[in-house]
Amino acid sequence: APGVVKSSEELNAAIAAASPGDVITIANGTYTDMEMRFVGQGTEDAPITLTVEEKGKVFFEGQSNLELSGQFLHVEGLIFRNGHSPTSEVISFRTSKVEVCNNCRVTECVIDNYNPAERFDSDIWIALYGKHNRLDHNYLTGKRNQGVTVAVRMDTEASRENFHRIDHNYFGHRAVLGSNGGETLRIGTSHYCMFNSNTLVESNYFYRCDGEVEIISNKSGQNVFRGNTFFESKGTLTIRHGDEVTISNNFFFGNGVANTGGMRIINAKQKVVNNYASGLTGYRFRSALTIMNGVPNSPLNRYVQVTDSEASNNVFIDCDNVQFCVGSDEERSATPENVVMANNVFSNKTRDKIFSAFDDISGITFSNNLISPNIVPLQPTGFQNKELTFETLENGIMIPEKTAAGDSIRAGLDLMATPENTGLTWYPRQEDEMFFNTGKTIDVKPGQNTLWDAVRDSEPGDIIRLSESGEYQQTKSIDLTHPVSVVAADGLSEKPVVTFRRSSLFNIENGGGLSLRGLKIDGKEGEDKPLNAVIRTSRYSMINNYKLLVEDCDFVDLDVNHSFNVLRVAKNTMADSILLRNCRFENISGSVLALDRETDDIGIYNAENVVIENCLFDEIGHTAIHVHRGGRDESTLGPRVTIHNSTFDEIGGDKRNKTGTSILLWGTQYVDIDKCVFDDSAPLKLHLVVGEPVVELRNSVLSGGTTLEDNGEPYQVNNLKRGLTEPLY
Amino acid sequence: APGVVKSSEELNAAIAAASPGDVITIANGTYTDMEMRFVGQGTEDAPITLTVEEKGKVFFEGQSNLELSGQFLHVEGLIFRNGHSPTSEVISFRTSKVEVCNNCRVTECVIDNYNPAERFDSDIWIALYGKHNRLDHNYLTGKRNQGVTVAVRMDTEASRENFHRIDHNYFGHRAVLGSNGGETLRIGTSHYCMFNSNTLVESNYFYRCDGEVEIISNKSGQNVFRGNTFFESKGTLTIRHGDEVTISNNFFFGNGVANTGGMRIINAKQKVVNNYASGLTGYRFRSALTIMNGVPNSPLNRYVQVTDSEASNNVFIDCDNVQFCVGSDEERSATPENVVMANNVFSNKTRDKIFSAFDDISGITFSNNLISPNIVPLQPTGFQNKELTFETLENGIMIPEKTAAGDSIRAGLDLMATPENTGLTWYPRQEDEMFFNTGKTIDVKPGQNTLWDAVRDSEPGDIIRLSESGEYQQTKSIDLTHPVSVVAADGLSEKPVVTFRRSSLFNIENGGGLSLRGLKIDGKEGEDKPLNAVIRTSRYSMINNYKLLVEDCDFVDLDVNHSFNVLRVAKNTMADSILLRNCRFENISGSVLALDRETDDIGIYNAENVVIENCLFDEIGHTAIHVHRGGRDESTLGPRVTIHNSTFDEIGGDKRNKTGTSILLWGTQYVDIDKCVFDDSAPLKLHLVVGEPVVELRNSVLSGGTTLEDNGEPYQVNNLKRGLTEPLY
Ligand SMILES: [Ca+2]
Ligand SMILES: [Ca+2]
Repeated sequence: APGVVKSSEELNAAIAAASPGDVITIANGTYTDMEMRFVGQGTEDAPITLTVEEKGKVFFEGQSNLELSGQFLHVEGLIFRNGHSPTSEVISFRTSKVEVCNNCRVTECVIDNYNPAERFDSDIWIALYGKHNRLDHNYLTGKRNQGVTVAVRMDTEASRENFHRIDHNYFGHRAVLGSNGGETLRIGTSHYCMFNSNTLVESNYFYRCDGEVEIISNKSGQNVFRGNTFFESKGTLTIRHGDEVTISNNFFFGNGVANTGGMRIINAKQKVVNNYASGLTGYRFRSALTIMNGVPNSPLNRYVQVTDSEASNNVFIDCDNVQFCVGSDEERSATPENVVMANNVFSNKTRDKIFSAFDDISGITFSNNLISPNIVPLQPTGFQNKELTFETLENGIMIPEKTAAGDSIRAGLDLMATPENTGLTWYPRQEDEMFFNTGKTIDVKPGQNTLWDAVRDSEPGDIIRLSESGEYQQTKSIDLTHPVSVVAADGLSEKPVVTFRRSSLFNIENGGGLSLRGLKIDGKEGEDKPLNAVIRTSRYSMINNYKLLVEDCDFVDLDVNHSFNVLRVAKNTMADSILLRNCRFENISGSVLALDRETDDIGIYNAENVVIENCLFDEIGHTAIHVHRGGRDESTLGPRVTIHNSTFDEIGGDKRNKTGTSILLWGTQYVDIDKCVFDDSAPLKLHLVVGEPVVELRNSVLSGGTTLEDNGEPYQVNNLKRGLTEPLY
Repeated sequence: APGVVKSSEELNAAIAAASPGDVITIANGTYTDMEMRFVGQGTEDAPITLTVEEKGKVFFEGQSNLELSGQFLHVEGLIFRNGHSPTSEVISFRTSKVEVCNNCRVTECVIDNYNPAERFDSDIWIALYGKHNRLDHNYLTGKRNQGVTVAVRMDTEASRENFHRIDHNYFGHRAVLGSNGGETLRIGTSHYCMFNSNTLVESNYFYRCDGEVEIISNKSGQNVFRGNTFFESKGTLTIRHGDEVTISNNFFFGNGVANTGGMRIINAKQKVVNNYASGLTGYRFRSALTIMNGVPNSPLNRYVQVTDSEASNNVFIDCDNVQFCVGSDEERSATPENVVMANNVFSNKTRDKIFSAFDDISGITFSNNLISPNIVPLQPTGFQNKELTFETLENGIMIPEKTAAGDSIRAGLDLMATPENTGLTWYPRQEDEMFFNTGKTIDVKPGQNTLWDAVRDSEPGDIIRLSESGEYQQTKSIDLTHPVSVVAADGLSEKPVVTFRRSSLFNIENGGGLSLRGLKIDGKEGEDKPLNAVIRTSRYSMINNYKLLVEDCDFVDLDVNHSFNVLRVAKNTMADSILLRNCRFENISGSVLALDRETDDIGIYNAENVVIENCLFDEIGHTAIHVHRGGRDESTLGPRVTIHNSTFDEIGGDKRNKTGTSILLWGTQYVDIDKCVFDDSAPLKLHLVVGEPVVELRNSVLSGGTTLEDNGEPYQVNNLKRGLTEPLY
């Protein structure tokens, strides 16, 4: 029988020689560029096993992957990290189009941040083909590129009605992708959605799976989702295609985190029962419960009408939105039919209006839904205001007492996924968030490249403090590969002045982040060529999202040549958040924020959250704030843009400003402009294209000929003063 | 006295301790990230010397550089390679704005391909500041990023009237940059061009310095250029700004290479005498001799009228073009005044019409210019047809006998730069061109990833031969980091079929190149997402130009999703040449060639030469051939596009085709479309913006509603048939 193997050659030999019952053991160590192909015929009683000498001590790095085919194969204990698959899948349950797996199991494997450098080089971490396979107790964390984490593929007959079981996996943090293709689990595709998959998805834990609007995208029939837990995940379990799907006894914990959602329902004969949701804040596609409108006689890849379905015995505690007929428009005009909603419980401490209907809901029969006394019923019948009492369990779940729904939740508790009963124990779980100001403070004095030297010597989270007023001149660009803060010391009489001679001062490279406070950035020494920037992202795709926080800073005289920006981003980079607060931007030949590089117009964008507060923009040549999300894809609910208490004066007048605007928000999903002044500027333009964006513009002034342009889509305007005859400044 | 130093610390200590006459010697070895700062006060008789233990054995790599300031410093023997400067200069004759060099010398140093990864991260290899410095016998080769190779800077008073001497340097190959900023030598800038530099540029050798239209850009007064040799260099010695410049006894050898040029004259009181030029083919800004029109009362940074100047005793053998009043337009309307052209010799064996005047030349006095009998005189007076006899020297120079010009050329021969009397002897000179088909042949059979494996095992110039018909399926993308050919074996009954599962089949990475012959590329297995490509360049900036040659290939069914291209390039990549010959492109949802990524519109573009011959394009969703060069910069004479004997049928009809065209040539400088058919297609569009492009469209047919669009700029149309009522296919 094969023993311990130490190389690709030995592994291949052992696989070739393996008989039912054999165990192939990979020796401890790190294997680079190892492409494993595990083909074998085990039996139900005597599977062929591929395992490791010691769990947690066998690593596959570089461009490694695993393909397997045959039957009764068992894989256990592999760790993929520090690299990415050379093919489009890391673990594939097939070795060719026709050689697939049946009755195979992959358990206790780890895939940890195993991503290509390119954000939109898409791949799938685990792809199931064939039938009756099981994927369980794996730990899959840090997928950052496009492509679903786990997919059930159904592209041949041999992979349909497959009865796979996906259970007790722990899905770690998946960062916002800013595009379609960020699902954590997908079952089927629209091509084959008329077939049944019969996959059971049970007791998996989803920890902050924020990739896109669909955490799970169901695209086939007769699947069952039960006992799964969704922790602070910014998306929903979506039945996108496929009929006769059951969603039961799942648990959604939003904890008030923005954009957390529950379940979104499309298609026919769906059953949504006994689920528990609390603290979900999402709206529209990310509501706690979303029932969509369909397209009449929909093609398979559009939206099939919701019919003959049921949503009963579910409990919603402190969830902001439950929405019906979502997506209603000229195309999606088929309202739900023969849908029953009964015995659900809705309780909300702070919000009275949680229900919305965007079209005719007469096809939904509501009965005996209990709502807390403050909640406004969706309609007179089928809803009953009632003071509810709750039993709060140890895990924080609030069971509404003496209700059918409460009883059914309680009955499902033993199925509930927890961090403890999912994944595996022998590999550390890490949170891979980026934090500022967690490290040491490094004091720096004025001089040439003193700041550059300090950043070179810094560690993640360090604070570099400019201890005196005076000039900090950089003849070299500062590359940031981890989060760093650069701040003025307290109590200085004047802001420290930072100047720079290269085409950029700070470069946020992959893994980097920047927080600035109390500085004056002067562009006078900049290289005499176009397209300089104070801060730029990596010119390469960044697989990590970044954060940029700027407070109490002045940016002046960025005008040595044309198109000098404050921030210049590259295609395929993504900011989780950009904050500008209490800043002054003056005499700048380019843009302040140019988040406009995703010109392919397929729904990708460059920043999720942009917040501008109490800033002054004066004499900016190009569009001061340009946020672009092109195309009509509905997979995301960003970018979100907030601009408060800010003044824009003489913006966008440069002859090279192609957009001809002072602010251009194209395809943004959420906009809140409040208490702002726009004077002597090119038009402020809102181009609203997809997803019924939430846009509000209020308490603001447009003067000096500044106009507001839009593309005819609706948005909110309150207390907007236009065309004042006197300039304000 | 300081001895041999082995580290940065020892070097700094030695420099700090150095007295006049000291010699600091750097020990043999490779130094990484070494930032040298050589400050000292030598004397005329006792300079301070920084040298190396053994020449050719001391290397500076990574992010190393040298700054020097003080006086009578002598630097010798340094080699910079495998990296790039951390600042904007590799060798800088200053250590701060006010600390500059006087009477310093840098000699026998090497800078070899010392470039950042980013093509448009600009830097200068050697920058001279201060006065009376000498730069001689250096070897500077392979600059590929933006920024001049050697610059004389004049930004402070201390750096003007500097009397620098730049002599006996060997400037190696500088590849086409495809943008402004590719000069090999620049003296001054437009900001300070009213000042004199008084730099002597003597006996330097320029080997294939093709960076841009200016090999040398003179931007200050009273400089002298003499004895320099320009070998097959695609540009000119340009007096761009500054008066009283002398160009004498220089040698230009074009050898019939395309775009080779001579001298281009602007401004006043210039003297162009005793120069020898042969085999130059360039036109307009790259003519053997170009006299520009000026702008009346020109601002310093535009074009000052040519006045009070002389061009005498020069010899032009077999040069294609000598042009006057070049650039004449509404703005540049000031014709040359008080210019003398006397005693020049023009001889041409094959071309009769070498002179062109684009405006009034009455301000130029021509006298006693001798022209070979076939040449058409520019005007009746001042030109004399004459059978000339020549003495051919050993180096190939042809001296016209018994002429004043011939005598003056002969008198200057001892100044003439040669490969032997320039640069240094102890470092190998290499040509860094990329060649196909210089290596071994690797035979490959059909199967999964057999081609991928062969490329991985290949070396530069290898030929991978697909030895049988059948399917070559790739589940991995093929990265090309050196030139490789992939060809079908001779005599196969059917073309080998290559299919691929990733988003691209071939990735041309930095240093790579691809030649394909005899294959069928089928897109049917491609990943089901938008924006696939058969071939793409690195997504990153490529510092090396690449070549793509495709012959006898079929590209079919690239339509698994939208916007599937044959070639997809990234921003900041540059093809020297792209050739498509005898190919068929059928059923493609994207573009065939999308050379359109330089959207900043500052004169940068993605391909120098595009040649399409005898191809069939059928059902292409987006613009089949899209070449974009934006902005109005005149530093380059590309892109050049030739399309012959090709048919375009049903092109550009996809609703996502943003340009709405079948072919879009924007800002191209040379277009030749001959014997082509355009049927049932979106418009063919020519957008001509700058540089008086040479555009010809002839012997072609537009039918099935296909129209020709332009922007009103002139171009040539001959024998174009439009609006045939019957479709051709
Ligand atoms: Ca999706
Ligand atoms: Ca130039």
